[in-house]
Amino acid sequence: MNHITSDGLQQSPASTQAPEPGKVTTGPIWGSRKVYSSPEKHPDIRVPFREIALDPSAKEPPLRLYDTSGPYTDTEIAIDVANGLPKIRTEWLTRRGFAKATPRTVRPEDNGGATGDRLVAPCPAPHAVLEGGDATCVTQYEFARAGIITEEMIYVAHRENLGRLKAAEGAAVRRKDGEDFGAAIPEFVTPEFVRDEIARGRAIIPANINHPELEPVIIGRNFLVKVNANIGNSAVTSSAAEEVEKLVWSIRWGADTVMDLSTGRNIHNIRDWILRNAPTPIGTVPLYQALEKVGGEVSKLSWEVFRDTLIEQAEQGVDYFTIHAGVRLAHVPLTAERVTGIVSRGGSIMASWCLMEHRESFLYEHFEDICDIMRKYDVSFSLGDGLRPGSVADANDAAQFAELETLGDLTKIAWAKGCQVMIEGPGHVPMHKIRENMDKQLRDCHEAPFYTLGPLTTDVAPGYDHITSAIGAAMIGWFGTAMLCYVTPKEHLGLPNREDVKVGVITYRISAHAADLAKGHPSARLRDDALSRARFSFRWEDQFKLSLDPDTARAYHDETMPKEAHKTAHFCSMCGPKFCSMRISQGIRDDAQRIAGMEQKSREFRDAGNKVYVPAE
Amino acid sequence: MNHITSDGLQQSPASTQAPEPGKVTTGPIWGSRKVYSSPEKHPDIRVPFREIALDPSAKEPPLRLYDTSGPYTDTEIAIDVANGLPKIRTEWLTRRGFAKATPRTVRPEDNGGATGDRLVAPCPAPHAVLEGGDATCVTQYEFARAGIITEEMIYVAHRENLGRLKAAEGAAVRRKDGEDFGAAIPEFVTPEFVRDEIARGRAIIPANINHPELEPVIIGRNFLVKVNANIGNSAVTSSAAEEVEKLVWSIRWGADTVMDLSTGRNIHNIRDWILRNAPTPIGTVPLYQALEKVGGEVSKLSWEVFRDTLIEQAEQGVDYFTIHAGVRLAHVPLTAERVTGIVSRGGSIMASWCLMEHRESFLYEHFEDICDIMRKYDVSFSLGDGLRPGSVADANDAAQFAELETLGDLTKIAWAKGCQVMIEGPGHVPMHKIRENMDKQLRDCHEAPFYTLGPLTTDVAPGYDHITSAIGAAMIGWFGTAMLCYVTPKEHLGLPNREDVKVGVITYRISAHAADLAKGHPSARLRDDALSRARFSFRWEDQFKLSLDPDTARAYHDETMPKEAHKTAHFCSMCGPKFCSMRISQGIRDDAQRIAGMEQKSREFRDAGNKVYVPAE
Repeated sequence: MNHITSDGLQQSPASTQAPEPGKVTTGPIWGSRKVYSSPEKHPDIRVPFREIALDPSAKEPPLRLYDTSGPYTDTEIAIDVANGLPKIRTEWLTRRGFAKATPRTVRPEDNGGATGDRLVAPCPAPHAVLEGGDATCVTQYEFARAGIITEEMIYVAHRENLGRLKAAEGAAVRRKDGEDFGAAIPEFVTPEFVRDEIARGRAIIPANINHPELEPVIIGRNFLVKVNANIGNSAVTSSAAEEVEKLVWSIRWGADTVMDLSTGRNIHNIRDWILRNAPTPIGTVPLYQALEKVGGEVSKLSWEVFRDTLIEQAEQGVDYFTIHAGVRLAHVPLTAERVTGIVSRGGSIMASWCLMEHRESFLYEHFEDICDIMRKYDVSFSLGDGLRPGSVADANDAAQFAELETLGDLTKIAWAKGCQVMIEGPGHVPMHKIRENMDKQLRDCHEAPFYTLGPLTTDVAPGYDHITSAIGAAMIGWFGTAMLCYVTPKEHLGLPNREDVKVGVITYRISAHAADLAKGHPSARLRDDALSRARFSFRWEDQFKLSLDPDTARAYHDETMPKEAHKTAHFCSMCGPKFCSMRISQGIRDDAQRIAGMEQKSREFRDAGNKVYVPAE
Repeated sequence: MNHITSDGLQQSPASTQAPEPGKVTTGPIWGSRKVYSSPEKHPDIRVPFREIALDPSAKEPPLRLYDTSGPYTDTEIAIDVANGLPKIRTEWLTRRGFAKATPRTVRPEDNGGATGDRLVAPCPAPHAVLEGGDATCVTQYEFARAGIITEEMIYVAHRENLGRLKAAEGAAVRRKDGEDFGAAIPEFVTPEFVRDEIARGRAIIPANINHPELEPVIIGRNFLVKVNANIGNSAVTSSAAEEVEKLVWSIRWGADTVMDLSTGRNIHNIRDWILRNAPTPIGTVPLYQALEKVGGEVSKLSWEVFRDTLIEQAEQGVDYFTIHAGVRLAHVPLTAERVTGIVSRGGSIMASWCLMEHRESFLYEHFEDICDIMRKYDVSFSLGDGLRPGSVADANDAAQFAELETLGDLTKIAWAKGCQVMIEGPGHVPMHKIRENMDKQLRDCHEAPFYTLGPLTTDVAPGYDHITSAIGAAMIGWFGTAMLCYVTPKEHLGLPNREDVKVGVITYRISAHAADLAKGHPSARLRDDALSRARFSFRWEDQFKLSLDPDTARAYHDETMPKEAHKTAHFCSMCGPKFCSMRISQGIRDDAQRIAGMEQKSREFRDAGNKVYVPAE
């Protein structure tokens, strides 16, 4: 698949094949180039976009797109994973006067005891660890509550405003067309609006003060719907670049954040490589590493080892932690009658610990301590849904909703401690039960952003669960979910390969965009309309460029019509020239627009009759 | 893809590769066998199902599934496309006393003037043409209105009742769980219910009296959501079997009906081969062939050539015709300002004709004549949406809705003439505008079944339009659409190949099933639950068998865990044994179910602690 006909146009150098050893995928996404734009009065803040120049016949200005891909698609930036990415936030953070910390000492168990040849070397990129223990404001939430607009807030406002900018950017602000279910989507996003949303707890900017390489992203119901991709280490890691490439590949196709779910050997060092090379927020589940540190024995898990892991990962720069503090001892029996029990890894570990110890969860009991640590580095909470349903049979049951209510209580505690919070959601939910999830989450969790996995709308299609879940994801995104965690075709069956990750990300970009359109985001339709105009004008190259996946669109077209001349053909392979409705319809439109009287129209159209029907080659 | 590890189990012989020349794909879908079941008191009516025997450890009866695949998956039936399929309806039709007609003589233009080597020979299977001109009741609608229950009605009632049958079939009737938006889905489908729904115009059984090979299917809001697949001839047809194979391949994966959209040479003879080998209803767009007969010149189209084509195809046995009679002269100017004009082939042809002639459409003017012809053979109407939107920008506009209102008027005329009717719908519609389509269609078209193409919920993902549209299809199916026309990954880009057709059909089965679940069809969840139980019990083989696409599910699993031992492993490749939530959760469940007191539970669980954590191999 995705074989690209060479045509002399600039193409992504490694869009389908894995990069050379030690390298990651670089170069622009086909048909676009990286541009930067600064908000008014903030020339030091440079927000990246992708710009697509259209065929001159279109007589349209270039179209700018939201760009998650980071410096990797910037031909001006030399990428070397050993150096890490430019640290664009360092100046902002320095101004905030955070103290340089004495970093925790790395211990053999942080890397799962890997030694010698099996040990992945630490990333040589420099990294000074900060902590904000003594500062009045450390987290974006604290700044927001104090009425202070941070650089990160200005950055995301400009990023979200794409297409909403007036004539200066050449794009018209659209009339509102959508149903937002009570959201408060602004016509224009100001930094003050961002601040206010964060202060209300309705949005977060996951941005650890130890992640200066970050291009800030906002996650909230009144902003564009975001997509998360999960990555994890391979059983046999041959190089750190290979692990970094998983991140690079995910964000190339549109992942806004990436969760590193690695387990086993070398996870500390690999996480370092990933963070130093990550322009997107990175999330983790610290419980996984804590369990590794005690040899995989749940009964040996303790607050102490968990606490140590939080600090370790926070110092590295992880932007958000999944914390399964809502799995309480009393909730576990509620899962006994389920068809698929507990399907969250973290949830099953904590449920198991609670039963073994017959004690309340240490995550729940130490929740305030966890807040104190996370606040110090501005690590955002992603309150885990350890009791999410694993089948449509278990959707919206007592266990799931009891946990959700607990997460609402914990949200208030985390806010009181100054932390940013989002809430994880299901899972497997049939369509008619999706809305209830969203409504209950908004109510019980006080409008903290919702971050769902799918949901899958049926259980009968292993191998196609990116699709079963894209349906649920689009719907729940429309209803108000702020971020969608992707699902790949391998879900429930195996480990996703390179192609699976790409398909998963593109699929979720579809769901997120369909949700943005339906919510009525002022500029969401610009790309659809540009692509539709290209389609109606038979500007094939423009159609490819404007696609979520230009390489695949082009390859599919070339499969049936490989010749270069076909790229300008005023028909396509499906119907051929004789049955091409768009071709016929263009004649109709040209005509109907030119003249008013139907009599004359009829005459002219008849005269032009032969133009509409040309012989097939 | 889809490489199947040989394991001695019965497998489909040609599930991924094209069959040998002159042959079509036969053999059971992996893990299932064909069974037949007869309604009480009707031993002569044999309704096919697929039955999946589960692993003995499941202690569950075999699960039966709705089966669209026809005799091709029955190992007892010898398939020879030259003979055609068994004519299961002949006796029923004979009893109705229809007259044998003198068939219309086939003319060279019926086959696009193909001669000599380029002419595909007619299908040798015997075919006696019937017509019901003089009979009181010919159509299912007429029988239903007269209070007569036909064999077809009994057949579909039994087919739809799968899983709703009481203890006799071993499946419990489920408590209602769904939101049906005012539909009237019965707990149990009786033939009388079917008759009543048809008499009200709320459902159709497309069943031409010249298609005795048909396994009847019902299309209506109160029945299971159906899926249509489109097929068409290749530019170079090497054999008739190759064209029949497209049908066989589509229904193997779950297409309930198939539309033959062929154009060009040999279409009459190929249609004959398809019909004599089609167990599903076959639909066509007669306008395409009519245009071929006049050399592709729209201005030469006339009622006479159209009428001749209707009779030609009706005699062959086509079960439903798309008739674009709603594209009226006055509607055409409404499309002038559209972003993508007219995107329906039939719509653009008729709009073009109206403008050229400056006359009302001959389809509209001769609508009653069309009814008279279609009634004679019981060809159902699929009233075409020639003005459907081709972009989200054009969704729900004046042109689209003006046509829909006209289709409502035509529905009443067709009913008055005794015909069965369904209504075609869009197209490209963002999520927030989908519901309006369904509600308006129900209202304006008097509850005649809706049959939509997707809709696509965004325009930005060429190459993935099976997914952009699966979202819209699931939603509109939930809201009440009776049949969903599939979209393949090649939509807008090229001709679908074998793999594309399969992916398109499976994707639409997902949408249809997600809709059935959400509507609360009494037995829809049986398959989900069986698969989820298999998942929770690590019955991998059962999971594959219960999947919509067993071959792909198995291949994906084998990619990461190829060994036979892994098919019984109590974990999978994603998390490994240490992090397997289902494994841990099973321990929790076993425990929680066995004992009541939490103290004791804790103690026992701790004792069993080592069982939950086994070392990885």
